Amino acid sequence: MAEIQRESPVPLYHQLREILRSEILEGRFKPGERLPTEFELIARYQVSRTTVRQTIGELQKEGLVTVHRGKGTFVRDGKIEPELSALTGFVEDMLALGIEASARVLSIEEVRADKLVAGQLGLNPSDRVIKIVRIRLANQEPLSYDVSFLPYEIGAKLAQEDLVVYPIFTLLEDKYGVPLGEADYRIEASLADRKIAEALGIRKGAAMLSIERTTYSASGVAVDFEQLFYRGDRIRYTMRLKRKRPGYSAT
Amino acid sequence: MAEIQRESPVPLYHQLREILRSEILEGRFKPGERLPTEFELIARYQVSRTTVRQTIGELQKEGLVTVHRGKGTFVRDGKIEPELSALTGFVEDMLALGIEASARVLSIEEVRADKLVAGQLGLNPSDRVIKIVRIRLANQEPLSYDVSFLPYEIGAKLAQEDLVVYPIFTLLEDKYGVPLGEADYRIEASLADRKIAEALGIRKGAAMLSIERTTYSASGVAVDFEQLFYRGDRIRYTMRLKRKRPGYSAT
Repeated sequence: MAEIQRESPVPLYHQLREILRSEILEGRFKPGERLPTEFELIARYQVSRTTVRQTIGELQKEGLVTVHRGKGTFVRDGKIEPELSALTGFVEDMLALGIEASARVLSIEEVRADKLVAGQLGLNPSDRVIKIVRIRLANQEPLSYDVSFLPYEIGAKLAQEDLVVYPIFTLLEDKYGVPLGEADYRIEASLADRKIAEALGIRKGAAMLSIERTTYSASGVAVDFEQLFYRGDRIRYTMRLKRKRPGYSAT
Repeated sequence: MAEIQRESPVPLYHQLREILRSEILEGRFKPGERLPTEFELIARYQVSRTTVRQTIGELQKEGLVTVHRGKGTFVRDGKIEPELSALTGFVEDMLALGIEASARVLSIEEVRADKLVAGQLGLNPSDRVIKIVRIRLANQEPLSYDVSFLPYEIGAKLAQEDLVVYPIFTLLEDKYGVPLGEADYRIEASLADRKIAEALGIRKGAAMLSIERTTYSASGVAVDFEQLFYRGDRIRYTMRLKRKRPGYSAT
């Protein structure tokens, strides 16, 4: 087993990170398995608690481990695990995980709402809407293909903004005075079609986690309808739900 | 457009259901589109409000429409849409939608926990656990392939039960005095492997919505770890989430 080189100029947390990373990548610790506790790592490698915490933090940013409060640190399969418990945007989700988020804007255009878009935004079919297509990246890697439809008035303003830099939620809330209230999520699995596969650099027919999200302002007006296609091999949403027994006997 | 035959012995709601069903299946109303309101249907077909409600209820059970309170009745693509907002079991989810739930038990066996199962159930690797594999059906159609792992003591009791008839949650809560508290959900997309495809009668490589769920008793003990593989072409989970701004500026 590799040991810390105390005479090395390489910082201890960096050395420890390399040791643990190798053990994970070489399969000594497997996905789902618990890492040694903080206490065990301190004892085994003779390093401080600060060093151990810095190391775990780095491994977490890389997506190699996940920390469950009170349960320990677990080895991951490299999937990014945002929490799905509140209405948050992509940039917010990534920042919460210490992951760098960025975007590529593929297109911004004025289109006519089809029946689905009109129904979700509370418009009439063939009303004008703004359609924005973006690729979202996590640590430079394409993670999702996002199609957003916005009512014309607000959408036309957003279309003038730098959407590579500013998330739509941030613009709505901070620049255009549209506080967000809640959103309806619809989550399903699909297969990547040719267009999405090419955009994300994955193969056609790959598993996609698809989310449709209709976001309402705090005053209850639909302001954004999105179709989000996440790479199935790179994302896993997590949530904790409380037991609720239905009002009948399930027997 | 088809009309109601008042002299016909066929009940009015049945006739109206056939009319609306044909219009949906023939594409006059498309997925995502809003159906005429209750009021419009009453006026157009000269039937009572009770008849309209009975009709919509029937279409909902068939999975042809979905009713969003306050927004109207929308045409669906035939996917079943359980709500993902509380810890509920399959039978409970289906009953809430007026769908008949059933199960086929493929296997019940005693196995040794691998690291993933042990980690989730708070056991040591190679501890004995009970593994139960079931197919869950909605209106007689296979919908998901469920693998459950239970700690040996409680699992061995459940293994004696008729799991075709009784859901595991019901047995735990009502027969074995284990009230459930909450559960961790992990949601991702995957492709059907050969085993699952054969069990569900779908093609290998079809889109699957995969859920891992670790269920805890009210006292916080892990009692059930499940891997649920839902047919991606037949299920869509829905939820409503409130806006929560993170504690930093996303710009």
